[in-house]
Amino acid sequence: MHFGRKKGDAMKLVTAVVRPERVQQVKEALFQAGISGITLSRVSGHGGEQEIVEHYRGTRVMVEFRDKVEIRMALSEPFVQVAIDAICKGARTGEVGDGKIFVQPLEQVYRIRTGERDTAALTPVTETKLTPV
Amino acid sequence: MHFGRKKGDAMKLVTAVVRPERVQQVKEALFQAGISGITLSRVSGHGGEQEIVEHYRGTRVMVEFRDKVEIRMALSEPFVQVAIDAICKGARTGEVGDGKIFVQPLEQVYRIRTGERDTAALTPVTETKLTPV
Amino acid sequence: MHFGRKKGDAMKLVTAVVRPERVQQVKEALFQAGISGITLSRVSGHGGEQEIVEHYRGTRVMVEFRDKVEIRMALSEPFVQVAIDAICKGARTGEVGDGKIFVQPLEQVYRIRTGERDTAALTPVTETKLTPV
Ligand SMILES: Nc1ncnc2c1ncn2[C@@H]1O[C@H](COP(=O)(O)OP(=O)(O)OP(=O)(O)O)[C@@H](O)[C@H]1O
Ligand SMILES: Nc1ncnc2c1ncn2[C@@H]1O[C@H](COP(=O)(O)OP(=O)(O)OP(=O)(O)O)[C@@H](O)[C@H]1O
Ligand SMILES: Nc1ncnc2c1ncn2[C@@H]1O[C@H](COP(=O)(O)OP(=O)(O)OP(=O)(O)O)[C@@H](O)[C@H]1O
Ligand SMILES: [Mg+2]
Ligand SMILES: [Mg+2]
Ligand SMILES: [Mg+2]
Repeated sequence: MHFGRKKGDAMKLVTAVVRPERVQQVKEALFQAGISGITLSRVSGHGGEQEIVEHYRGTRVMVEFRDKVEIRMALSEPFVQVAIDAICKGARTGEVGDGKIFVQPLEQVYRIRTGERDTAALTPVTETKLTPV
Repeated sequence: MHFGRKKGDAMKLVTAVVRPERVQQVKEALFQAGISGITLSRVSGHGGEQEIVEHYRGTRVMVEFRDKVEIRMALSEPFVQVAIDAICKGARTGEVGDGKIFVQPLEQVYRIRTGERDTAALTPVTETKLTPV
Repeated sequence: MHFGRKKGDAMKLVTAVVRPERVQQVKEALFQAGISGITLSRVSGHGGEQEIVEHYRGTRVMVEFRDKVEIRMALSEPFVQVAIDAICKGARTGEVGDGKIFVQPLEQVYRIRTGERDTAALTPVTETKLTPV
């Protein structure tokens, strides 16, 4: 895609924002789907709801920020839909606030220990090959 | 833009790093501009200043890391400038360290609860339409 | 690249996930290479290892999440390789878990205080010019 890589080597960064109480299920769904290189961070967020406004001492404030967990994973393209399905399976309760998933382009990846690049840097060392199930 | 989407459906990820004491004003400015799907995280950072260096027991260290808040929002393209204006309005003090805004491409968005995609996933359920003011 | 910018003005967002005990060395290596606009956040993560699974009361869990630090920096393109080299120099121990580096496209940057855009917004105010060493 860039730098002369073949199309099949395209990579994406997938970021999900989910309920903290669902992180364990999301991790397990990802892991069972063959995705285990992931980064988590604690965030807080508000969904698209517009009407939740309060007047407190004259100040108009946006309320209802909730603790969420952000899960980030760099993937080769064939794994993107696999990851989305796993995240939804682990995170969905059916109630508002289940979260969002974002897919972004990713141009280069490096494994710091070895200097490996791109899809080679995304393949775990303990595996010889891994294809989407 | 990608996957056969129309140009008008392009989406962006806007990330701002601002002073913690300005987060409430930024939130309010965004909210008043019609943007309420946002994710916050605590970060620490250093701006471009080069000269702030200290020698402590012979070690050269980069000092002055300050607590900041990162505000992330996925937007359809017509809202990008709206968001930038709102963030600047809420965050600017005129002193060094007011922060930075980054705009990145965003290829796909999913609402986990419903499975809606892309711009449909960015439209709050409680609204039928929302156009930049 | 976008919006009529010249190719030489392309910008990238470089994100590294490294060991907490190596953050100071990474900062110093970046600083010495002329890169000082950076944002840090605490994250936790798991590398690509597949086999680390445990059964605890019948639940299959993915273990070994480790504290890591994420270092993010927006750069003009000529600095990308400079940054990668500096990060590797500061972060590499040779043991598994040294971390990953991700490079993503970046379309716009704003300095909130001045309203400067793109590469102008990436140049520290205290410097007139800065070229990769
Ligand atoms: N447009 C957005 N940009 C950035 N983060 C978002 C956006 N929308 C939601 N989020 C993040 O995802 C979290 C969960 O969002 P939420 O599930 O409420 O989305 P929603 O679109 O309101 O869907 P629902 O109608 O199911 O509540 C939010 O708390 C926020 O952290
Ligand atoms: N190039 C960059 N890459 C990543 N993060 C950055 C960059 N520049 C600044 N930041 C983040 O933004 C925060 C605020 O930066 P700051 O406002 O000091 O930027 P600046 O370019 O030095 O502008 P000013 O001259 O107004 O201080 C920093 O603490 C850091 O977290
Ligand atoms: N594919 C990935 N996507 C997102 N984050 C990742 C990915 N791979 C690794 N990380 C993050 O980087 C951290 C360090 O990863 P690590 O160095 O173990 O990578 P690795 O590919 O397993 O390399 P090594 O074989 O040297 O251990 C992880 O804890 C995680 O936070
Ligand atoms: Mg919601
Ligand atoms: Mg500064
Ligand atoms: Mg590893």
